Amino acid sequence: MSFSWDCAATDGRARAGTLHTAHGDVETPVFMPVGTAGTVKAMTADAVRATGARMILGNTYHLMLRPGADRVAALGGLHRMIDWPGPILTDSGGFQVMSLAGLRKLDEGGVTFRSHVDGSAHRLTPESSIAIQEKLDATVSMALDECTKFPATGEQASDSMALSMRWAARSRAAFLPRPGYGLFGIVQGSTLRDLRLASVDALTAIGFEGYAIGGLAVGEGQETMFGVLDYTVPALPADRPRYLMGVGTPDDLIGAVARGIDMFDCVIPTRAGRTARAYTSRGVFNLRNARFADDPRPLDAACPCPLCTRHARAYLHHLFRCEEMLGPMLLTWHNVQYYQDFMHGLREAIVRGNLEAHAAAVRARWGEGDDPP
Amino acid sequence: MSFSWDCAATDGRARAGTLHTAHGDVETPVFMPVGTAGTVKAMTADAVRATGARMILGNTYHLMLRPGADRVAALGGLHRMIDWPGPILTDSGGFQVMSLAGLRKLDEGGVTFRSHVDGSAHRLTPESSIAIQEKLDATVSMALDECTKFPATGEQASDSMALSMRWAARSRAAFLPRPGYGLFGIVQGSTLRDLRLASVDALTAIGFEGYAIGGLAVGEGQETMFGVLDYTVPALPADRPRYLMGVGTPDDLIGAVARGIDMFDCVIPTRAGRTARAYTSRGVFNLRNARFADDPRPLDAACPCPLCTRHARAYLHHLFRCEEMLGPMLLTWHNVQYYQDFMHGLREAIVRGNLEAHAAAVRARWGEGDDPP
Repeated sequence: MSFSWDCAATDGRARAGTLHTAHGDVETPVFMPVGTAGTVKAMTADAVRATGARMILGNTYHLMLRPGADRVAALGGLHRMIDWPGPILTDSGGFQVMSLAGLRKLDEGGVTFRSHVDGSAHRLTPESSIAIQEKLDATVSMALDECTKFPATGEQASDSMALSMRWAARSRAAFLPRPGYGLFGIVQGSTLRDLRLASVDALTAIGFEGYAIGGLAVGEGQETMFGVLDYTVPALPADRPRYLMGVGTPDDLIGAVARGIDMFDCVIPTRAGRTARAYTSRGVFNLRNARFADDPRPLDAACPCPLCTRHARAYLHHLFRCEEMLGPMLLTWHNVQYYQDFMHGLREAIVRGNLEAHAAAVRARWGEGDDPP
Repeated sequence: MSFSWDCAATDGRARAGTLHTAHGDVETPVFMPVGTAGTVKAMTADAVRATGARMILGNTYHLMLRPGADRVAALGGLHRMIDWPGPILTDSGGFQVMSLAGLRKLDEGGVTFRSHVDGSAHRLTPESSIAIQEKLDATVSMALDECTKFPATGEQASDSMALSMRWAARSRAAFLPRPGYGLFGIVQGSTLRDLRLASVDALTAIGFEGYAIGGLAVGEGQETMFGVLDYTVPALPADRPRYLMGVGTPDDLIGAVARGIDMFDCVIPTRAGRTARAYTSRGVFNLRNARFADDPRPLDAACPCPLCTRHARAYLHHLFRCEEMLGPMLLTWHNVQYYQDFMHGLREAIVRGNLEAHAAAVRARWGEGDDPP
C-alpha cells in the first residue's frame, strides 16, 4: 500500500480526510499525543488507544540517546517496543538539539551536540537523522531542519531557511522508500511571506509525502501564527497532508484547522495533566484550587473518560494534594480524551459544513466557565 | 446478609474459604493490595481489578488527615470515591500514629498526635477510630490497638497487650453493626506465648467477626514470626477469618498460609513496583540492573499482565532509567498481578490438598533464578 491522504470533505479551507499508512488509517484533522521517550507520559498504550487516539509522536532526540536507535531496532522497532501498532510520527531530533543552546554547534553538514543526559558527544545530520528514524521504524519521518529562532532578522531567517531546504533535499535522498511509510518536509521562513513561499516551492520541487510547517509557536503569538498559515497553507499541494508542528491550545487548533491544517502534536494535554491543569468543555481548570476540595461533581460531565465518569473533582484534588501518581495518570488520560473528542468534533463539523458555527459554540462554552457549585 | 467466612477445604492447618461481605465475596487466602490514601499507588482501580484482586486496604491515618473522613463520607464513602465497589478493609490508624515517635502521646483514653502533613493536633481513641472507619464506609473495620514495639520487656508487652484489649472492648462497643460489615480484633502479646494466648482469650470473649494478628513483621524475623503463628493461630475460632497484618514477602505468605492465616496486606508489591524491584516466578529482579538493557524477553513468561505480555524487559529498564511514570505503573501492575496469581495458586493447592508440594515447587523455581540470556 502507498502512503497517501485523501479528502472526505472541505469547509472553507478546512479539510476532513483520511491518512493511509502501513500501520493503519487515521482520520484527519488529527491530534497526535506526544510519546517523548517511548511513552505518552503517565499513560499505558491501552489508555491512549481508549481515548480514540490513532497516531502518536516519538522524539528522535530522546530515543537516540535512550534507549538508542539500535536498541529500539533490536526490540523490533518503536511500535513493538511500546505496544503501539498504529502509526507513529517521529520528529527529526533537530528541534530538541537546537534548544540545547550552549551544548550544540551547527554547520553545513549537520549539528554536533552534547547529550543533556550524560554530556556525551553526538552528531545529527540529515542522513543520520533519517537513518535513526528508519531504525525506530517511524511511519512518518521528518526531514532534519533548523527551527529558525524567533525573532530573527531577514538575513538570519533567509539563511536558516536555505540551510533547511538543502537539508530537506539530503533527507529526501537518504530516506528509504517503503510502502505505507512517508517523509515530510518542513516549511521554514520565520514570519516572512516571501521566505515561506520560497520554502514551499523548494520543498514541493523535492517532493514529500506530506508537508509540515515549522518555526511557529515559538513566541510569535497566535495572530502572527495564523497570519503565516493564511499565506502558506494555500501554497501547499492540496493532495498531501499538512502538519503544524508543536501546536497547540484547543483555540490554536480551531484556527489552524480552519486554515487547512490536518495534523498536530503538542505536549500541552499531557504536561497539563501532570500539573493539575484540566482542559474541559468549560475551559481550563487548575485542580489544585481549594474550591475543588469538596466538589462532588465530575470534572467534565460531557467527557467519557474514567476520571469524569467515575470520580468526583474532590477526589482528583485530593490525589494532587497528596502527590499521588494516580492524579497525573487520570488527568492526563482526561486531557488526551478531551483533545481527541475535540478534534473529532471539528472533523464532524467540517463534514457537516458548519465548522464556523461549531467553533463559535465550543468557544462560547469555554467562555461560560464552570457552573456554580 | 451477614458478614461471614466459610471454609471450602483444608490442607493441614491451611484453609481455603470464602469471605461474604456487603460488598461481595472474596476467596481466601487473600492478599489485599494497600490503597494508602485512597489509591493503590500507580494503579487505576480498573488495573487493580484486572489483576484479580477483590479486596483492598485503606489507611485510616492517611485518610483522616487527607481528604478527611467527613469529606469521604460526603462523597459517598471510600468505595464510591475511589471507584472500588468491592470490599475494603481499613486499619485503625493506630499503627501509623504509633510510628510517629516524637509526634505522639499515648494515654489510657487514646493517642494524641501531630499530623506529619501540617503539624496539626489530632486525637485518636477507640471510639473515634471506629467512627472514622464508619464514615469511610469500611467493609471491615479494625479495633484500635497499640502495636507493641519490638523488642519489648515482658512487662512492656503485657501492659501494652492489656491496653489493646481494653481498647478492643471499647472498639466493639463503638462499632455500629450493619449487615455484611465486620469488626476485627487484633491479637497482641509480642513474642510471648502466654501473652498471645491471653490476648486471644480476651478477644474471643468480646467476640469479633474476624481476628487479626498484629505486632509481627516488626523486626522479629521470619522464624520467630512463624513460631508465634504456630501457637496463636490454633487458639483462634475456626469459623472466623484470620488476618496477619502487614505481611509480607511471598515466602512469608507461604509459611503463614500453611499455618492457617486467611488474609494479608503489605506494601511490598506496590512499593517494589515503584523502585524497579520485580517479583517473578524466578525470584526478585532489580530492573535497573544494566543486564536488562538489551533483554528482549518478557519479565516473567508465566505472567498474564500487560507488562509481561506486551513488552520487553529492555523497555521496562529504559522506562526506569528515564524516570518515566510508566515504569512504576507497569511494574506495580505486574507485582500486584504476581501476588494475586501467587495467592490463587496457594488456594488451588489447598483445595487439591497438596500445598506442601506446591510450595516446594514454587520455592524451587525462585531458587533457579533467571534463565541465561
